[in-house]
Amino acid sequence: MEKNIFTQKLEARWEKGLFLCVGLDPVLEKLPAHFAKTPNSILEFNKQIIDATAQYVCAFKPNSAFYEAFGAEGWSVLQETISYAQEKYPEIPIILDAKRADIDSTNLGYTRAIFETLGADAVTIHPYLGQHAVQPFLNYKDKGIIILVRTSNPGAGEFQDLLLDDKPLYQHVAQKIASEWNTNNNCAVVVGATYPEELAVVRKIVGDMPILIPGIGAQGGDLEKTVKAGQDSRGWGMIISASRSIIYASDGEDFAEKAREESEKMHRQIQNALKK
Amino acid sequence: MEKNIFTQKLEARWEKGLFLCVGLDPVLEKLPAHFAKTPNSILEFNKQIIDATAQYVCAFKPNSAFYEAFGAEGWSVLQETISYAQEKYPEIPIILDAKRADIDSTNLGYTRAIFETLGADAVTIHPYLGQHAVQPFLNYKDKGIIILVRTSNPGAGEFQDLLLDDKPLYQHVAQKIASEWNTNNNCAVVVGATYPEELAVVRKIVGDMPILIPGIGAQGGDLEKTVKAGQDSRGWGMIISASRSIIYASDGEDFAEKAREESEKMHRQIQNALKK
Repeated sequence: MEKNIFTQKLEARWEKGLFLCVGLDPVLEKLPAHFAKTPNSILEFNKQIIDATAQYVCAFKPNSAFYEAFGAEGWSVLQETISYAQEKYPEIPIILDAKRADIDSTNLGYTRAIFETLGADAVTIHPYLGQHAVQPFLNYKDKGIIILVRTSNPGAGEFQDLLLDDKPLYQHVAQKIASEWNTNNNCAVVVGATYPEELAVVRKIVGDMPILIPGIGAQGGDLEKTVKAGQDSRGWGMIISASRSIIYASDGEDFAEKAREESEKMHRQIQNALKK
Repeated sequence: MEKNIFTQKLEARWEKGLFLCVGLDPVLEKLPAHFAKTPNSILEFNKQIIDATAQYVCAFKPNSAFYEAFGAEGWSVLQETISYAQEKYPEIPIILDAKRADIDSTNLGYTRAIFETLGADAVTIHPYLGQHAVQPFLNYKDKGIIILVRTSNPGAGEFQDLLLDDKPLYQHVAQKIASEWNTNNNCAVVVGATYPEELAVVRKIVGDMPILIPGIGAQGGDLEKTVKAGQDSRGWGMIISASRSIIYASDGEDFAEKAREESEKMHRQIQNALKK
């Protein structure tokens, strides 16, 4: 089957050895001191982070929650952040981490918002409502539809690990995605770096499907274990996401330079882990 | 335990026999012909729907997807819709149907967006990440946190009906909410009117907790079965939501009057069903 545009962009980055994804999740309180505490500062901050880290990433991932917090103004900043990155670095896909999912007729609103109005290349969604509900997402053949399977947070197992027919829920979700949801070859899954054993299990289930792996950095995931468990048969397939450890590497005027250094460091660590 | 403000508002409406919730889910294509096809028309449309139906409802429920479709401008319309309803009808709670949920630090962005910036009285959320993740929502003692349990869409059972110890996942979710998540007495659940048997089971599990019941009207749920299965020990506890069948009752200049008639009709049907 032909690769969609999101996957094509990802593979071109993986081919260069780039697996890091920088999460653009800014909060006013953590902006470097020389920024005014206004939503517009976030746009300027994002632009500098994007420019500083672009050479080391396979994707950028703004999380919509941090923009919605500022209402309409935040939504404009999100829109302008995506436009800035896409115009300057059209080769780098933008994942909107929005964790949406509603019934099918309502999801048409979300797909319009995310793929048409904002123009993101991919989106994260919840699996709970099932395939019929999320079909409007799956119908976008050239976008990436990234479904939550095993999340990175403490307590993720409350429902995700419940044993249904002797198999945890998250494995049922992964199997459904691999065997039934992926007819347009545009699915990917989320598995937290904080759960490397579960990551290895999911990798077996989904084959060479892309896995978005948050939880490295501030959340404490182990990079070496992640790469070992997460890589596909080609040594690719990973979108390893870090946010706070990179974008807040310094709260001084050198924040962009420190973000560059931190992303380069993580890029090299991933490279070293792949060689083991 | 003291009732929170959301529950107090709901109970004051239930006491008047009001159980209908009007979903404010406008799309440009379906606006009456005399409206210009612009986001600002949606605000005017919403205001007239709110005024026409307020006397028959226990809550209004805008769904964020329909506003996000218009980007920042849509977010402003959502904000102004909520403000309009709250200023004119402060006794009627506003449920933002947003179906959010992320890890805990990110949910702080969503709670700020929904409860502080937009000022909604309640929000719908996904259960998949577990209690630890959604604690920032649960910490809002005076808001309503309405968790998806059994959704109204076709195919909802794909994961929600998977059996664990001979009991489907959605019942495990309902039990966790009733026994562990509700320490601030601010939880409610979503069960679709399209599944009345499941609704009766969930009602037993959650006691007198409010249940948001979408799926009446365009989705085909049966009102009589819904009321029989959904009412609590007081004959209350239901937020029965309809959107398209009310807000698009007419596409002419009489749309507000027809929406009023349709909501009055549903109000009386609910009343009659309660008497049976």
